[in-house]
Amino acid sequence: MCQSEKIEGIFTPTLVPLDDQGNINEDELRRYIDWLIAKGVHGLYPNGSTGEFTRFTAEQRRRIVQIVAEQTAGRVPILAGAAEANVRETLAACEQYADYGVRAVAIVSPFYYKLGQEAVYAYFREIALGSVIDVTLYNIPMFANPIDIPTIQRLAELPRIVGIKDSSGDMAFMLRMMAAVRPVQPDFTFLTGWDAVLVPMLLAGCDGGTLASSGVVPELTRTLYDMTRGGRHDQAMELQFQLLELFDTILFSAEFPEGFRAAVAQRGFNFGRSSLPRSEQQQLEFEAFAKQIHRILDEKGFVETSGGQT
Amino acid sequence: MCQSEKIEGIFTPTLVPLDDQGNINEDELRRYIDWLIAKGVHGLYPNGSTGEFTRFTAEQRRRIVQIVAEQTAGRVPILAGAAEANVRETLAACEQYADYGVRAVAIVSPFYYKLGQEAVYAYFREIALGSVIDVTLYNIPMFANPIDIPTIQRLAELPRIVGIKDSSGDMAFMLRMMAAVRPVQPDFTFLTGWDAVLVPMLLAGCDGGTLASSGVVPELTRTLYDMTRGGRHDQAMELQFQLLELFDTILFSAEFPEGFRAAVAQRGFNFGRSSLPRSEQQQLEFEAFAKQIHRILDEKGFVETSGGQT
Amino acid sequence: MCQSEKIEGIFTPTLVPLDDQGNINEDELRRYIDWLIAKGVHGLYPNGSTGEFTRFTAEQRRRIVQIVAEQTAGRVPILAGAAEANVRETLAACEQYADYGVRAVAIVSPFYYKLGQEAVYAYFREIALGSVIDVTLYNIPMFANPIDIPTIQRLAELPRIVGIKDSSGDMAFMLRMMAAVRPVQPDFTFLTGWDAVLVPMLLAGCDGGTLASSGVVPELTRTLYDMTRGGRHDQAMELQFQLLELFDTILFSAEFPEGFRAAVAQRGFNFGRSSLPRSEQQQLEFEAFAKQIHRILDEKGFVETSGGQT
Amino acid sequence: MCQSEKIEGIFTPTLVPLDDQGNINEDELRRYIDWLIAKGVHGLYPNGSTGEFTRFTAEQRRRIVQIVAEQTAGRVPILAGAAEANVRETLAACEQYADYGVRAVAIVSPFYYKLGQEAVYAYFREIALGSVIDVTLYNIPMFANPIDIPTIQRLAELPRIVGIKDSSGDMAFMLRMMAAVRPVQPDFTFLTGWDAVLVPMLLAGCDGGTLASSGVVPELTRTLYDMTRGGRHDQAMELQFQLLELFDTILFSAEFPEGFRAAVAQRGFNFGRSSLPRSEQQQLEFEAFAKQIHRILDEKGFVETSGGQT
Repeated sequence: MCQSEKIEGIFTPTLVPLDDQGNINEDELRRYIDWLIAKGVHGLYPNGSTGEFTRFTAEQRRRIVQIVAEQTAGRVPILAGAAEANVRETLAACEQYADYGVRAVAIVSPFYYKLGQEAVYAYFREIALGSVIDVTLYNIPMFANPIDIPTIQRLAELPRIVGIKDSSGDMAFMLRMMAAVRPVQPDFTFLTGWDAVLVPMLLAGCDGGTLASSGVVPELTRTLYDMTRGGRHDQAMELQFQLLELFDTILFSAEFPEGFRAAVAQRGFNFGRSSLPRSEQQQLEFEAFAKQIHRILDEKGFVETSGGQT
Repeated sequence: MCQSEKIEGIFTPTLVPLDDQGNINEDELRRYIDWLIAKGVHGLYPNGSTGEFTRFTAEQRRRIVQIVAEQTAGRVPILAGAAEANVRETLAACEQYADYGVRAVAIVSPFYYKLGQEAVYAYFREIALGSVIDVTLYNIPMFANPIDIPTIQRLAELPRIVGIKDSSGDMAFMLRMMAAVRPVQPDFTFLTGWDAVLVPMLLAGCDGGTLASSGVVPELTRTLYDMTRGGRHDQAMELQFQLLELFDTILFSAEFPEGFRAAVAQRGFNFGRSSLPRSEQQQLEFEAFAKQIHRILDEKGFVETSGGQT
Repeated sequence: MCQSEKIEGIFTPTLVPLDDQGNINEDELRRYIDWLIAKGVHGLYPNGSTGEFTRFTAEQRRRIVQIVAEQTAGRVPILAGAAEANVRETLAACEQYADYGVRAVAIVSPFYYKLGQEAVYAYFREIALGSVIDVTLYNIPMFANPIDIPTIQRLAELPRIVGIKDSSGDMAFMLRMMAAVRPVQPDFTFLTGWDAVLVPMLLAGCDGGTLASSGVVPELTRTLYDMTRGGRHDQAMELQFQLLELFDTILFSAEFPEGFRAAVAQRGFNFGRSSLPRSEQQQLEFEAFAKQIHRILDEKGFVETSGGQT
Repeated sequence: MCQSEKIEGIFTPTLVPLDDQGNINEDELRRYIDWLIAKGVHGLYPNGSTGEFTRFTAEQRRRIVQIVAEQTAGRVPILAGAAEANVRETLAACEQYADYGVRAVAIVSPFYYKLGQEAVYAYFREIALGSVIDVTLYNIPMFANPIDIPTIQRLAELPRIVGIKDSSGDMAFMLRMMAAVRPVQPDFTFLTGWDAVLVPMLLAGCDGGTLASSGVVPELTRTLYDMTRGGRHDQAMELQFQLLELFDTILFSAEFPEGFRAAVAQRGFNFGRSSLPRSEQQQLEFEAFAKQIHRILDEKGFVETSGGQT
């Protein structure tokens, strides 16, 4: 794909299947990628929060992007999470991922330590100046330091920074970002990471989303996207309420992203468990929840009788 | 107006002009009400947060509603903030306001003490069962105890509770409320209190809003409402960005709602100051800010040469 | 009492008994005051958060202070909560309470609206300049706008501001306040409002506390205070752990301050309920909880066989 | 040191000197360790938050513990931060650090994703059951998921879990932990990570602390500890106020832990910069701040004329 093409549409944050030893299940990952592409996702997004990037080693993160890139083979663009322990390591990952052929990297705001906006700015600037590949900012204030509007405005001036993915779900914040950046950088990409409000975000001018639920029901998110772009707002809003019900059921019933792993299993994939341990109580709750997920997906016609067939 | 008519459209949270002694400036309040109605607001909302209900005495709150009701004389419906120190006092206010002819009361969730949802439910239920007039819930989690979705769902079953005004600005919360309540109570009213996202909220199915900025630029909020309802989404979004700029300038430049008082002054009214004291530093900042407000309102054609003339 | 005497020791935030109609039960309030004084509290604190000041009307708040002052008749100093809707009303209350003979007023930081520190400063300054009686600041950041260290430092320069009651329970904040104010105002009073940490606060240099639990077990808080002042730190810490168990049981088992009302009932008083409504579920939980309170007070020898007798 | 000896006293969270390429400056690290031990710290704590564990690669974290262990050579016990990407990696680090001869590992609560208490419990339990070495919990709610009292109580029953380091600075939380755990596990260790309240914490029964400021003024924290243990409370509190002034100056003047790096430089070490980039504005602020640090350390007699000499 052309490196300068605008990033837009629905990008799927790629969950990673694990085997019983906790290693990457490569065959299943490749099969899942093919399925997602066949179901119409516009792009793939490995090493995001849904992809549990913090729970893998640096080596595993590189291997995940390599597999996704190989298997995709240019059919859709890839946005690869590339944040590592520090700027030096992050820039090395950027270089590697550029070699793999990804469209751009996504860099989450620094987390753990609380940083002021000047430090957040300095961090992204250093990466933008050193990166050999386009960079999108990743704002997820519930997990990481927020990136404020003036900081986004300053960073958008750097040629390598081409967009932002915002998972706050805050519509006013989205409008404020667009108001601050579009007059000077009309091609800057705005993606939402909050499935619950996808249609209103698209109606308000967003370019697309990186949505965990698109890894479970890629047909639904694609239809919803197409309807919105095609001016069928009322039908799109009806689907939005369906997506909301699904999303909330999956999101609130287990530790994130365990519910999404369980939901993908209903589509015919064997994803194993996350590397996160569970207590006996959690295990019982999880089994009850998996049945609920099954019921709701079945009701809406999303349970595959033969695994992962398109 | 018919008591059972659905509450919808733009309701203006009524700022209260004060004289130099801090007393209600009744003449200016009456003149302001006439102006708002002439400019096309769908309803009035005295004793809301913008109306600084907590900074008046119980007697003043009653007098404000009385003046608004008398002056409106049925031209538009009134939603009157009626929360008092406890349920007994609140029910007495409901009765009084019903006598004044208001369409419904708005009751803010209990504030100061942190309450669990069961207590929030019990509070509103007691009011709903005792009230002689329709009640709308008022959710403003930045100032008062949040009202959760399951609580709203339970409360919506009570005949007197006819709607909710939500000032969180959270689009996902709005969609979740609508998903939870509309299937069982199709006539329940959903109003947003967050000017920054009015158009997306309306596009998503909201019935209207109680918007501080509609007290400053009632023409703009009315046009924006009419465009959205008339299917002119792109033009409505353009106006939304103009409203956002105005709203943010006013909101972030002084203690709320001082900026709105200063902005209304630019429309030709003498509102005096809030009862909130200012330090010397605040006074200097405020004067600089008032000039900025003037500039931005003038730029958009909203500065009156002769005060408050329609 | 001498107006310039330093405020120190244990002040009891006075709960207000209500009758079945929700009116002040004056006889029981007078009997309770006598009991508290007999049990050794150093002072009384009507119209605090424990005293549910926001749930009474302005008239009731005045009446409460009047009753407390009359009944106390100078035996112990009174710190009276005097915050009203705005500065003008607050100053009128200060004047009234001065006439009643209270030692000082306590003014909670503005709540509901979020204010910057400059506005918090301006608010307290205006009150301090207009008050005819000594003022203590009341910092309770879980319910009201926080008062920051630099603001406290500036306010401590005003002659009328003689102390602060801090209910954050934050030891570092207490030390920072003392470090900021004592070098310039050595007589400034620091009271903690957090029962859970009374002994460590006293050991660190605090002058006393306004403690909800002192309204339930005034003997215990007095002994604990005396032991700490008398250098018996280890015994004081042992009692602190007993107080902590009591406090947590009461605090976490019902909406504040319902648990304290129920606990006082175990000491032989008929306080009725708060004006806060309860759902059926809350009522059931409350009854179970009242038994637990009885058990724990009985275990420690605090259940009276004949009501409220010293 | 005996593996079963109780962990107590002042443990220094070990800052890591970097060279101009951002690599570990091994010689300076070894020199620093010798200096700390000579100045009287009771133990060392590499790979904590002060040690910027998240900003190093997994290989660097192992190397840091190896250097610290080699250089310490058993003179003082070592508590080594061992949290890695997931439980499998963490257990491998535990094994490695046991081989290096550390006394115990410290495991920070999971961060980035928000977890419920059941998941926090399951995580620590899995580590405790698999670890070949004693484990201390590390609670730092401002950066990571909080560990609640009931969770601590359950975890304290596991033989490998021997203590907790709490950096909340919340005295009530500390007392609640002690009340919940000591009756059943009298040897469980409680350390505070909040320098601002060290003396009150020790007076309340804490076993010691892991304190960033002990890496800057190890003499002061040691004296303060000895005075408190020796019953000289008033003198200890005087030193506490000195420590507070130092701590706050260092803490609030730059992104954590940049200020501590700058302060250690004043003691005669060349620590270089953290791997965190700085903007021009931050650089200017930092230089002004370094002068302030110099002044305050000099004032108190802590500036070395010849670098790092004991």
